[in-house]
Amino acid sequence: MRVLITGFDPFGKEKINPSFEAVKRLPDKILDVEIIKLEIPTVFYKSIETLRSKMCEIQPEIVICTGQAGGRSAISVERIAINIDDARIEDNEGNKPEDKPIFFDGENAYFSNLPIKKIVKGIKEIGIPAEISNSAGTFVCNHLLYGLMYYIQRDFKKAIGGFIHVPYLPEQVLEKNNTPSMSLDNIVEALEKAIEVSITEYRK
Amino acid sequence: MRVLITGFDPFGKEKINPSFEAVKRLPDKILDVEIIKLEIPTVFYKSIETLRSKMCEIQPEIVICTGQAGGRSAISVERIAINIDDARIEDNEGNKPEDKPIFFDGENAYFSNLPIKKIVKGIKEIGIPAEISNSAGTFVCNHLLYGLMYYIQRDFKKAIGGFIHVPYLPEQVLEKNNTPSMSLDNIVEALEKAIEVSITEYRK
Amino acid sequence: MRVLITGFDPFGKEKINPSFEAVKRLPDKILDVEIIKLEIPTVFYKSIETLRSKMCEIQPEIVICTGQAGGRSAISVERIAINIDDARIEDNEGNKPEDKPIFFDGENAYFSNLPIKKIVKGIKEIGIPAEISNSAGTFVCNHLLYGLMYYIQRDFKKAIGGFIHVPYLPEQVLEKNNTPSMSLDNIVEALEKAIEVSITEYRK
Amino acid sequence: MRVLITGFDPFGKEKINPSFEAVKRLPDKILDVEIIKLEIPTVFYKSIETLRSKMCEIQPEIVICTGQAGGRSAISVERIAINIDDARIEDNEGNKPEDKPIFFDGENAYFSNLPIKKIVKGIKEIGIPAEISNSAGTFVCNHLLYGLMYYIQRDFKKAIGGFIHVPYLPEQVLEKNNTPSMSLDNIVEALEKAIEVSITEYRK
Repeated sequence: MRVLITGFDPFGKEKINPSFEAVKRLPDKILDVEIIKLEIPTVFYKSIETLRSKMCEIQPEIVICTGQAGGRSAISVERIAINIDDARIEDNEGNKPEDKPIFFDGENAYFSNLPIKKIVKGIKEIGIPAEISNSAGTFVCNHLLYGLMYYIQRDFKKAIGGFIHVPYLPEQVLEKNNTPSMSLDNIVEALEKAIEVSITEYRK
Repeated sequence: MRVLITGFDPFGKEKINPSFEAVKRLPDKILDVEIIKLEIPTVFYKSIETLRSKMCEIQPEIVICTGQAGGRSAISVERIAINIDDARIEDNEGNKPEDKPIFFDGENAYFSNLPIKKIVKGIKEIGIPAEISNSAGTFVCNHLLYGLMYYIQRDFKKAIGGFIHVPYLPEQVLEKNNTPSMSLDNIVEALEKAIEVSITEYRK
Repeated sequence: MRVLITGFDPFGKEKINPSFEAVKRLPDKILDVEIIKLEIPTVFYKSIETLRSKMCEIQPEIVICTGQAGGRSAISVERIAINIDDARIEDNEGNKPEDKPIFFDGENAYFSNLPIKKIVKGIKEIGIPAEISNSAGTFVCNHLLYGLMYYIQRDFKKAIGGFIHVPYLPEQVLEKNNTPSMSLDNIVEALEKAIEVSITEYRK
Repeated sequence: MRVLITGFDPFGKEKINPSFEAVKRLPDKILDVEIIKLEIPTVFYKSIETLRSKMCEIQPEIVICTGQAGGRSAISVERIAINIDDARIEDNEGNKPEDKPIFFDGENAYFSNLPIKKIVKGIKEIGIPAEISNSAGTFVCNHLLYGLMYYIQRDFKKAIGGFIHVPYLPEQVLEKNNTPSMSLDNIVEALEKAIEVSITEYRK
């Protein structure tokens, strides 16, 4: 059994992305399962292709993508991705799609099939704030989750997948007034717990 | 040379108070200076008396009181305390003063004489969000800072003192929507840095 | 040509619902089009049935449902409804569904087919804050928008429809700290503009 | 009997200042008392001198200064002004004092002697959110309130005075995400009520 977990590279005005900073620090095994880590470019479509290519190579049972949700105070486990790209800033290669469907033959939206409520419960039990989110936005995070679930439904029918948004790191909000953050240690622990819960539920 | 640092006991609906949780974990020496830790009851006047009594006993050069500021996202170093008690909830002994002066013979307000700007700078340099605050409220935190500065000015003229508010811990916001928190490790590091900066400046 | 605009009755701990308060105050004609107003019960399924029944009766070309989004500071025009009911509080008849699909034969989500970007632009041009929202939540507001778009797609193919969330009224936040509100006059003007833009676009 | 009410000119990146926009729209009499309106420049010291000069001329019994508090959601009646200027942006003539006392011979702080609790109560009774604020900041608003109370205490002993912060207008937050605002009508009504309560209490 294999778990693929991804984080994004930095985008916008940020120099780091807490998602991949946390992913890098995860152990190589959780329970007895191998954890494969992948950095994803914050670029429309290229992000999905990078993910799909790795999924073809390693055939993971569980795929969890992560990204930065600046301004949120809790770990947010995404419920759904919607078939639209609508960017307010450019991605890392200068693309800025507005109101474009991601895949013409895709559904309007795909629900994550991770055990999202149990993941939230598990993370809160170790003392870290977590919540379900009903929107991953319309930038590259939603785009990647949409692509992930599109391909899971089409090509990787035994896999489960989803997306977890993480807050800014404390060092990212030094000059941002009244902006919540979360320590890297807490983000790493939360992701580890999310993987652990997903493995346990997958095996049931 | 001695530093006295205090934290409050829990109040309101909270089961812990992050301020004393952090104070307890501080080392017993910072630079080469002895750190004395004290838990203060969240009670009008009794808080001041507990502090003053300890100050008489140990004659500290530096006094830093800390308290919980639920809802803030950064370490806030208080600039000033004002001569008023105006409580919206009861303290831990049921007192709920409204629009009462703290000391009839006190000034309208006292400024902290800690190096507050340098403390904020020092904390941010280690990657933890910090800011100056211009109001410690009108509950027991402001009350204690007011009492501290009143007595420093009257009886402990060589001492410097002030107040630092700390955010909720992550475990306190599990059921509070959109509420920022800070890890205990970060709070402890921030307080340690505040003490270090205060000692260094005191010696100049 | 006919426009049907709806608002909800009060729910939770609120005594009024700003959505229907505003709807009631709309004129009976906008441009030269008849405006039909309807109060909807904040109840799962009964809300959809109330709406559908009225749509059958009056065969409107444009349907705009409105609801209260406590805590938001701007008029939010919803982009999409998702096929799930997941309530944190009971509706007005005591229902509290958790993770239930709304219609088993429905799509995962439906996009509003109102001119949502043009509505936002029009409202901002008259000086009122407005934004696109990517989530109408998982309570009765999302439920109603989902039902509306399901039936538009199935039975009312010439109609366009959507959902607009409005902030609290000032009188609702008197005892809620740091909670944004919007005046009833501004909400009414915003809804009138939304209808006007929808009519103009429909006729193109 | 005379009431002097002031508002500021625009500052920072704003093109209007809601405080003087509201003051301009106040009636010329409230109860039977003459209301004199004055625009104050957002400039350190010049603001105080402009105010003092008018006070000498008209000898008002009641002085209420108002200013913009961007980001607040309620009318805030200030409790106190502190003896410090500490600007993060330049005033309208390029001054940017840091940690400077306002008056060397002034007290650390002055409390407003308006009936602040009754003003808050009165405003809420007409359905507009209002609150006591314990900090007017350290920019020109605090500076002006400090100067007002300094001169009231020294030269205008029969006068009462204070400061009211008002939120952004809706048109100011069109491009500011998640930022509360208040309609001009509501701000005007709130200020009118504040004056009315002040007159009534002054006469007791």
